Amino acid sequence: MQQEVLCVAFESIVGKQNCITDPEIIKTYLEDWRGIHVGFTPIVLLPNSTQSIAQIMKICFDNDIGVTPQGGNTSLCGANIPHSTKDRLEIVINSSKMNQILELDTHNQSLIVQSGCILSTIQAIAEDKGLFFPLSMGAEGSCQIGGNISTNAGGVNVLKYGMVREQIMGLEVVLPDGTIFSDLKGLRKDNTGYDLKQLFIGAEGTLGFITAVCLKLFSQPMSYSSALVAVENPFMALELLKKGKAFFGENLTGFELMSSSCIQAVEKYLPSCKIPLSSLYPWHILIEVGNITTDQNNDERMVVFLEKALADTLITDGIVANSMQERKDFWRIRHAIPEAEKYTGPAIYHDISVPISKIPELIEQSIAELEQYIGKSTVFAFGHVGDGNLHFTKGKPASMDKTQFLNETANVHRIVHEVAVQLGGSFSAEHGIGTKLKNELEHFSDPVKLELLRTIKNSIDPKNIMNPHKLIG
Amino acid sequence: MQQEVLCVAFESIVGKQNCITDPEIIKTYLEDWRGIHVGFTPIVLLPNSTQSIAQIMKICFDNDIGVTPQGGNTSLCGANIPHSTKDRLEIVINSSKMNQILELDTHNQSLIVQSGCILSTIQAIAEDKGLFFPLSMGAEGSCQIGGNISTNAGGVNVLKYGMVREQIMGLEVVLPDGTIFSDLKGLRKDNTGYDLKQLFIGAEGTLGFITAVCLKLFSQPMSYSSALVAVENPFMALELLKKGKAFFGENLTGFELMSSSCIQAVEKYLPSCKIPLSSLYPWHILIEVGNITTDQNNDERMVVFLEKALADTLITDGIVANSMQERKDFWRIRHAIPEAEKYTGPAIYHDISVPISKIPELIEQSIAELEQYIGKSTVFAFGHVGDGNLHFTKGKPASMDKTQFLNETANVHRIVHEVAVQLGGSFSAEHGIGTKLKNELEHFSDPVKLELLRTIKNSIDPKNIMNPHKLIG
Repeated sequence: MQQEVLCVAFESIVGKQNCITDPEIIKTYLEDWRGIHVGFTPIVLLPNSTQSIAQIMKICFDNDIGVTPQGGNTSLCGANIPHSTKDRLEIVINSSKMNQILELDTHNQSLIVQSGCILSTIQAIAEDKGLFFPLSMGAEGSCQIGGNISTNAGGVNVLKYGMVREQIMGLEVVLPDGTIFSDLKGLRKDNTGYDLKQLFIGAEGTLGFITAVCLKLFSQPMSYSSALVAVENPFMALELLKKGKAFFGENLTGFELMSSSCIQAVEKYLPSCKIPLSSLYPWHILIEVGNITTDQNNDERMVVFLEKALADTLITDGIVANSMQERKDFWRIRHAIPEAEKYTGPAIYHDISVPISKIPELIEQSIAELEQYIGKSTVFAFGHVGDGNLHFTKGKPASMDKTQFLNETANVHRIVHEVAVQLGGSFSAEHGIGTKLKNELEHFSDPVKLELLRTIKNSIDPKNIMNPHKLIG
Repeated sequence: MQQEVLCVAFESIVGKQNCITDPEIIKTYLEDWRGIHVGFTPIVLLPNSTQSIAQIMKICFDNDIGVTPQGGNTSLCGANIPHSTKDRLEIVINSSKMNQILELDTHNQSLIVQSGCILSTIQAIAEDKGLFFPLSMGAEGSCQIGGNISTNAGGVNVLKYGMVREQIMGLEVVLPDGTIFSDLKGLRKDNTGYDLKQLFIGAEGTLGFITAVCLKLFSQPMSYSSALVAVENPFMALELLKKGKAFFGENLTGFELMSSSCIQAVEKYLPSCKIPLSSLYPWHILIEVGNITTDQNNDERMVVFLEKALADTLITDGIVANSMQERKDFWRIRHAIPEAEKYTGPAIYHDISVPISKIPELIEQSIAELEQYIGKSTVFAFGHVGDGNLHFTKGKPASMDKTQFLNETANVHRIVHEVAVQLGGSFSAEHGIGTKLKNELEHFSDPVKLELLRTIKNSIDPKNIMNPHKLIG
């Protein structure tokens, strides 16, 4: 089918204004947030219903057209970027207009929404009813729930609530041939065959297009206590985490490690973020406790915990947030790190995980091996250490020029990933594979896993329509 | 291959004593706990290693022999019972000798075990290290973790901790052709492709044989408060649950509804279970709160909660356990219900779920429709109402004889399941499909779901080797 004829067909489904072909406007859909992954497509569609997406998919299936599903465009592995070529057309279906709230059941603590709903909107709807949706991350003001699910997003509350996978009760998905798989039940227990929705969660849009979701909501924590503390090294952080889990149990909701380099970059480039402890301490940790009851004094308990840690020389300094505003300020520092990283210049990014006990070795070995390979430079190490997840960024050594440095990206990745995997860990903790880590998936996966991944992909998307250049496609 | 030749091959793998062919001994492997599902096989194997199972599976694959995976034989849907016929041999591979503890990491709060480990053994290992494995149910002294995972077991702690699916970080599985898929990493975050382990969880052994698992452990609750209360009707139970969630948050770990008929049957047939409230109250609820800290007085909070509920006329009576022994006594009553049911005579069993808000309608409509269809009789309604899950058992009307009554099983099932599904629920909450509910799966699933289930089954087990008569096989 000619592209013009196709556009007429698409326009008849989504309306002229929602079939974007103007190259100037399309530009904003072609590049990721960090500007690392850039692609191309001549057509971006903005449907607002499951039926429309089913019709679009049918056309794509019949005409062998690739489809890149796109949400808020906040992927960090290029999973959302189209790669249309002369050989094969690939369009973008963006879910931004799929933003309806479909059903809220406060008794069942469940919320059904279309996949284009912004994460912070969902959080606000829950909060408004005295409930809580725990998924939270820096991008929450622009990322969409469909993208979160396709990435199996993690974020800052995994310690208590798990990945987004654990917060999903039902899904509606348009399959590659345009068929609708609908399973939007709000059930916590439903053992009726293979749990098919699990396949689409974390599939990065390679098996189908998620159009709606039934989310599990939780009781709203009534009180928080947040502290920023300094520790000498990651071993101390680990010990503190273990004691924190024993002391606060599942009320320990956040445990975020930050190297001094992160704090210094935030201080330098985002001076509106006020750092309440000296940035000269080698490591900082943001600790948060959330409690459902108000009759316990969380801050008092936090002070007891920190005083004991100080006496045990686990921490060297610490401050407890005095107000909700101070709590927010603490989190602003943490969430500002990725932006501050960007300002510091060229860097090579990693999102890795290990069994929690291996975090200190992961940091130490990665730094040492990279220093040997490419030279000394700033390293940003931060992240959700409570889940064994570290964001690890290697800055450009002063002696290298930018191109020379970035040409080493694949080698630097391999070194860090090798360290993680050797320690029983993963080369992609929460950001996914996309195009960025396809080679790494091939390299590090055992053949049986790769074969199973391909079997699943081929059986559900035999024509490789869905996000064809990503993950295993 | 002749059966004798096969046995020689199997004996060379597992040893003569672990290749059972004596029909008298085999009998114990052929019947389920309730005595409803009975099958046949001439060969039961008891391997003790993954390699042995891989070798056995390879022989079965090459010779087109069916395999029924079996653990502690506590399935309630016949998923563990072999159905060997003259046309096709089907053997049992029982995991009872796969009972090694492979690795415990207290920092990472993870435990790797072989699939034949008994659930209560796993609970004890965790407890010994001040940790907690939350999966718990009546059968915990004999059920095995491999079976729990194949069923995606629920139990009494789902309210706080979710199904067993959420407690699994890694799996090792022998695929139908004897290949080993190994993914035993102890990671809370690992977004590297489709989460393949999810396919095997809840697959009832139809896709592969689970040989080992990496489990997530939790902080051990330090103090409990347990109460037994009486309510007038399920609406009151629902209101109490909502208030309990708001009051106790995620510390509310148990909320088990029991009809007076359940309490009366336990009193009658298991007199060692002491019932501390009058069995004449129409409904009883076992409420449990678990807390990580010891400096809060849980019982005091429970009393505050119950006094308010009494003042609001939500409950009509209540008693708080005074000691760990009393707490255990409360749970013995709850766990004794299935046994007491058995003593009361022929019955038709259901394991259904609905959105929590629909529990009262589910009970009311099911009772009314069955009364109209088959007449009045004792109904046992009990279960994990905090998760929207009800066990619902229809006793034999006095006017019918046993055979006449049991001949109505399929019709009775259909009526109850129809009510659940109409209310947005499921005809199998936590027990699974097995052979018992294969027809129901066909009847209630939309064709897209059935097609996807078959696609998955065919792509991973094209020769239908694994548990061939169960689920979708």
